[in-house]
Order: sequence, then structure tokens, then C-alpha cells
Amino acid sequence: MITLSSDFGQPYPAAMKGVILGETDARLVDVSHEFPRQDVRTTAFWLREVLPYFPPAVHLVVVDPGVGTDRAALAVRAGEHALVGPDNGVLAPAARALAERDSDALDGGDAAEIEVFEVAYEDPASATFHGRDVFAPAAAAVHERGVATIADGDGVVPTDEWVDLVFPDPTVRDDGADGEVLVVDGFGNAITNIPGAVLEDCWGDSVSVNGQRAPVARAYAAVPADQRLVTVGSHGNVELAVNRGRGDEAFGVGVGDAVVLG
Amino acid sequence: MITLSSDFGQPYPAAMKGVILGETDARLVDVSHEFPRQDVRTTAFWLREVLPYFPPAVHLVVVDPGVGTDRAALAVRAGEHALVGPDNGVLAPAARALAERDSDALDGGDAAEIEVFEVAYEDPASATFHGRDVFAPAAAAVHERGVATIADGDGVVPTDEWVDLVFPDPTVRDDGADGEVLVVDGFGNAITNIPGAVLEDCWGDSVSVNGQRAPVARAYAAVPADQRLVTVGSHGNVELAVNRGRGDEAFGVGVGDAVVLG
Amino acid sequence: MITLSSDFGQPYPAAMKGVILGETDARLVDVSHEFPRQDVRTTAFWLREVLPYFPPAVHLVVVDPGVGTDRAALAVRAGEHALVGPDNGVLAPAARALAERDSDALDGGDAAEIEVFEVAYEDPASATFHGRDVFAPAAAAVHERGVATIADGDGVVPTDEWVDLVFPDPTVRDDGADGEVLVVDGFGNAITNIPGAVLEDCWGDSVSVNGQRAPVARAYAAVPADQRLVTVGSHGNVELAVNRGRGDEAFGVGVGDAVVLG
Repeated sequence: MITLSSDFGQPYPAAMKGVILGETDARLVDVSHEFPRQDVRTTAFWLREVLPYFPPAVHLVVVDPGVGTDRAALAVRAGEHALVGPDNGVLAPAARALAERDSDALDGGDAAEIEVFEVAYEDPASATFHGRDVFAPAAAAVHERGVATIADGDGVVPTDEWVDLVFPDPTVRDDGADGEVLVVDGFGNAITNIPGAVLEDCWGDSVSVNGQRAPVARAYAAVPADQRLVTVGSHGNVELAVNRGRGDEAFGVGVGDAVVLG
Repeated sequence: MITLSSDFGQPYPAAMKGVILGETDARLVDVSHEFPRQDVRTTAFWLREVLPYFPPAVHLVVVDPGVGTDRAALAVRAGEHALVGPDNGVLAPAARALAERDSDALDGGDAAEIEVFEVAYEDPASATFHGRDVFAPAAAAVHERGVATIADGDGVVPTDEWVDLVFPDPTVRDDGADGEVLVVDGFGNAITNIPGAVLEDCWGDSVSVNGQRAPVARAYAAVPADQRLVTVGSHGNVELAVNRGRGDEAFGVGVGDAVVLG
Repeated sequence: MITLSSDFGQPYPAAMKGVILGETDARLVDVSHEFPRQDVRTTAFWLREVLPYFPPAVHLVVVDPGVGTDRAALAVRAGEHALVGPDNGVLAPAARALAERDSDALDGGDAAEIEVFEVAYEDPASATFHGRDVFAPAAAAVHERGVATIADGDGVVPTDEWVDLVFPDPTVRDDGADGEVLVVDGFGNAITNIPGAVLEDCWGDSVSVNGQRAPVARAYAAVPADQRLVTVGSHGNVELAVNRGRGDEAFGVGVGDAVVLG
């Protein structure tokens, strides 16, 4: 199985699929090709949240504002999964999440080791579409060879250096937490970096969010339509939401904005 | 085969696919993840129109404004098809359409019986994403067990009570009909609940629509570009359209608005 | 394998998939269903660029402003590929590109011959959705019969007449070229008909574009963010771009506008 993620919109991803399907009969599954353009950070967040739900797979990721420059092409092994994409941090949070949810780790063992490889490439057909000319062939090759043997591929060399990307930690206090908005989803839910556990004693009550009180509820529909709520989203973090509306607008926050809770 | 329908946009559907593919090798086919957010009624219309064209399948549907409340999770059997989704009416029109197009029914027999089951679930990982945590696993389980044996699943119990959803009937008169706009499609075609048969004697002529005359034609391109027409759409109902333009704007109608024909 | 291309948005393509999957187990791959509505020319451009990257397949294409009129339905054979769609030119540039990239041609032989067939159809269920009622069944039939034997299908007759579509040639001068913008992609890159070779001696230098100078660079990120550049895109043509921005806006050009280079 090969999953595909990019910021390409349409129809560029189809060229990647054509290239891959010339090399392998693997099942292809789109994660999204609508990630915000050139937004490595938002893409990295979503991949961290979504990829661990997949069975072992090769995950092709192309959000690549540095295409055509000398940034490396990477193949990363995280347990039974592999990630293939540019060396700009977009793969890092998902690699850690996959390593932590490796079958051994879930059985109580340690997280899988993350192994990072650089994939050499020469003279691709274009300098502007490495998704098609570099990463799609690399993902197909990793899939055909098998995730366990990435290192045996031609021009694949282990490396210790890669661009990492770490989301900021919140400060959890006895009476609340200081964090920030990591992303806003398509519904308008503002997803913070504050762990849902801080709301443990607040269910059915209300909390202060940036100085304004809002009810704490498990379900959007627990409050009337168009009303604000604070909840724990499917990612396990505190989320600022509106029932049948947009939380980002109602709370007046966007990506990177501070969220002071309690 | 499992089809997927939701109002999630991107990338939430990928998490559902990951969960399903951990349980089954079934073919996955997206119907749409761009249904209007929280719009049970519009989604129900489109599922009624589209799902009967599929061969026997499990249809996973998640347009679920009541997620996290006590609304039930349903598995509905309609002949050789099954539907899995929330108990809010979204499955009902499609279930009837599938039952009426069951192979026995198409051979002249009766419509298939619709059997409704409630699927128990406890403590899902989230209260906000039952698509991933409740419905995707349920759809995979129904697929693996087989549509004919839904009732044998753990925690699956027959029920007579479900939220129904019925689209309003038009009033057909000798000289026309009174109906309403059910949905507007992406082209701007305003699709009414008036059966196409009322136009039987009007082809090549014109009719009055809400007091204004418009030509009746079988093809959009039968009138000049940007001109209005009344036609019968692919759903068999009267449709208000503009050749290479938007019928909803030209006729000044939206979802739920009255359409007086003739 | 069957690829699908249309201007339908959602959820109409799912009805086509349902119909096809009732007839064949072929792998289905979406090229795009977001081609600009009724824009035969832009769709033809993208199909020419993308389809040659696929292994042998049947390519179903439905951008069809003449649906329901007497325009023919075509099945076109180009080497090991087939294209199925309306006779409005949308298939022609891709057919030529596929013929030129046929395996024999790539081994140094001649381009494959393009064979055009008209597919008869009578009384489809609708006059407005031939994608579902005419082209999807035709594509499934071509796939099941095999591309080499299109002509043996019921109601399939060879024809010498089809609507062709040819993109304009640029005028290449010693000191530059006169061309036009063929399409603008989702990133805002303005893709011209001028071959990339005209920039051969300009890398690292600058050129005049419609009277204004801009740097010539292989990678978007070779210039600072929000700065203009002239590059060669993945299609091999000159492209007017902005690093992390929209080239069409910065250069003030849209589809069909003249581009005078050098």
C-alpha cells in the first residue's frame, strides 16, 4: 500500500499515480492533495494525526517549496512503515508517531527506531515536479523492495542529519494551560497543542479561554447551534469549536495564536 | 466493496480509510467527502441518486452533526447492499432506492425488505470523530461478515425505530405542477421534486416557471450559451438550468424554494 | 486500468464509478474531476501532459458541454491506450501524446497509429448525464474487450472525421519567442506554449517578458519568496512563476494572453 499526500490540488497527483502504477500494483490511497500550499508545518501535523491509523504502508509526501534546490530526498523507516519525501521536516512528526504506534510498541515494547536515508537522484526530467520525477519513483521502489530493506536500494545511504520539525509544548499549570493553535480544520475547529487531560475536571462546567468563558462539552451538539464550546478533538488535544459553525472565528484565533486556558 | 461519503473535506476521510484497511482488503470508492457540512438532507438526496448505480456494496455515510450525543449508530440492510451511518435520516432515502432497485425487484418482484439494526458502541477513542472510531470499524465488520448476516455481529440488534427522512411530494396539476427545489448541484442546476413526466407535451415549447416563461429542452446546448432552460435531469426530475451557466441564479431559486410550473 | 477525468466536481463521478464497477473489476484512478467547467481546451492540455505517465489504460474523459446534442461518442485507440469521450476535441492532444510515447515509438520506432471509432448509443437514460449513461458503459466495454479490439464492439465503427484540437505554435526567434499562455495551474504558474529550449543560454541571467525583465531560474526557491521568475515547468515549456506566489498575477497574464520573450 502506498498513501499519497501533497499540496498539489488537481491534476498533478495523477501524474505521480501514473508513474507509480508503471512500477507496482500496490494499492494507492490518497490522504489529501489539498494541504495548504507550501505549508510544511500544517501538513506535518495532519500526517502525524492520520498516518498511524493505516496498516503498514509506504507514505509518499510532497509538500516541497524547495523543489529543485539542493534539499535532499529522504526515505524514512519507522517500524513497518516508510515515508518518502523532501528533507524539510514534513516527515518528522509522522515518523515519530508511527514509531510509537509500531506493533511492538503497542505490545508494551519500545518505540520502533527511526532510520533516515538519503535517496540520491540525478537529472530528473524536471526541476519543478520532483513529486513525479523523484519521489514517486522512489516510493514505488521502496514499496517493491520492501520497507525492511530500504537501505539496499541503489543510491540509498543512511544519514543522521535531517531537518526536524517539533511542535511547541504547552505549559500546563495547576489551574489551566498556556498553549497555541496548531491548525484550524475545515470545519473551523481550532486545534491547540494543549492535552485534553487539562479539561478532566471541567466537563459540564465552563473554562476561561483568552479571558472569555466558554462551556466545556464532549460533543459539538451538547451546546445550541452557533454556540461556542471547548472540547477534546479526535487528536486528543483541546479544541475551540462552535456547534455547526466555525470555532476559529468565534474565538478570534488562527494558527500560531496563543491560547490561555483557565 | 465499501463506498465512503461524508462532509469531512480533507484529510479526515483518510483516517477512516486507514482504519478500514487495517480490517479488510475491500475495494474503497469515494462517493464524495464534499457534501455540505452538517447537511443531512442534501446528502440524503445525493446518496439516493448515486448509490443505486453501484453493484452490491457496504456504504459508509458520515454526515453527523449529532456526533457524541446519544443518537444511535445504524447498519441498514437493503437487499444486497448495506448502509452504515448515524441515525439522523441520512441513510433512509438511499435505503429505499436500493431496495427498489434490488435484483429481485428489477426482475419484477417486490422491493427488497429494509432491515434496520442498531450497532452498539462503547467509549470510542473520541467523542468528535465517530467516522473514524465507530462507523469505519462497523462498516469494515459488516463487509467482512457479509451483508446477509449483519444481525450476527456483536452488539447488533434489530430495531423498528429510526429517524426517517422523506422528501416532499409535489402537487401535479393538469396544467403543471407545484413543487420545490430539493438541491442545487455544482453546475448550478436547480433540481426540483417535480417528475420529468409533467414536461411530456412541452418539448420544444416553453413553460412558465414562477411566472416567467422559459424554453423546455432536452439538452443544455439546445439553447444559446447563458440562456435559461427547463429540462429533465439525470435523476428524472425537472431541473432549472442555464446553458454553460447557473440555473439557480438565473431563475432566482435556492434549496427549499417553491417552483410553480405551467 | 481505467482513469477518469471530468468537470463534474462531486458527487456525479461516483455514479460513473458505480456503473463501471458493475461491469468490470478494473482498477479505477481519478485524474481529476475539477477540470474547469465546460473547458474542453484546458482539459485537453492537462490530459496531454498527464496521461502519458500511465501504463496502458482506458481513459474515460467527460467534459461535454454538448451533452444531449448530436455530437458523437468516441473511442480512440493510441497504441496500448484507449480514450473514451465526446467528440469535441478533448481527446485529441492526449491521443497524439500517447501515440508518440507508445513503447515502439520510445524504442525508436514510429509513433503508434491513432484509430478513431464512433460508438453508437440509443436512448440513454438521460439526455444530461452521458458520463453515466453512455461513456462509463463504453469505457467499461472497451476495457473488458481489450484496447486492441475496440473495433469488434457492438455499434463501434471506424471514422475518419473527428473534432480535432491543436494548440497554437509559438514563433521562436533568434533572440526570443512569441507565444501565449496555454493554462494557469492551481499554484498560479502561467504555462506557455514556448519550448523550454529557448531559455538554454539564459540560466542565471534574466529575460524580458512582455517588456519587463525577470530572472531565469530552474527552481522556484532560487529567487526570494514573492519574487517573479521565468522557468521551465514539468511539461517542458516556459512557465511564468512566483516563488510561493502566483505567477499569473505578478506577470499580469491569463489564458490566451500573448507572451513575448527576449
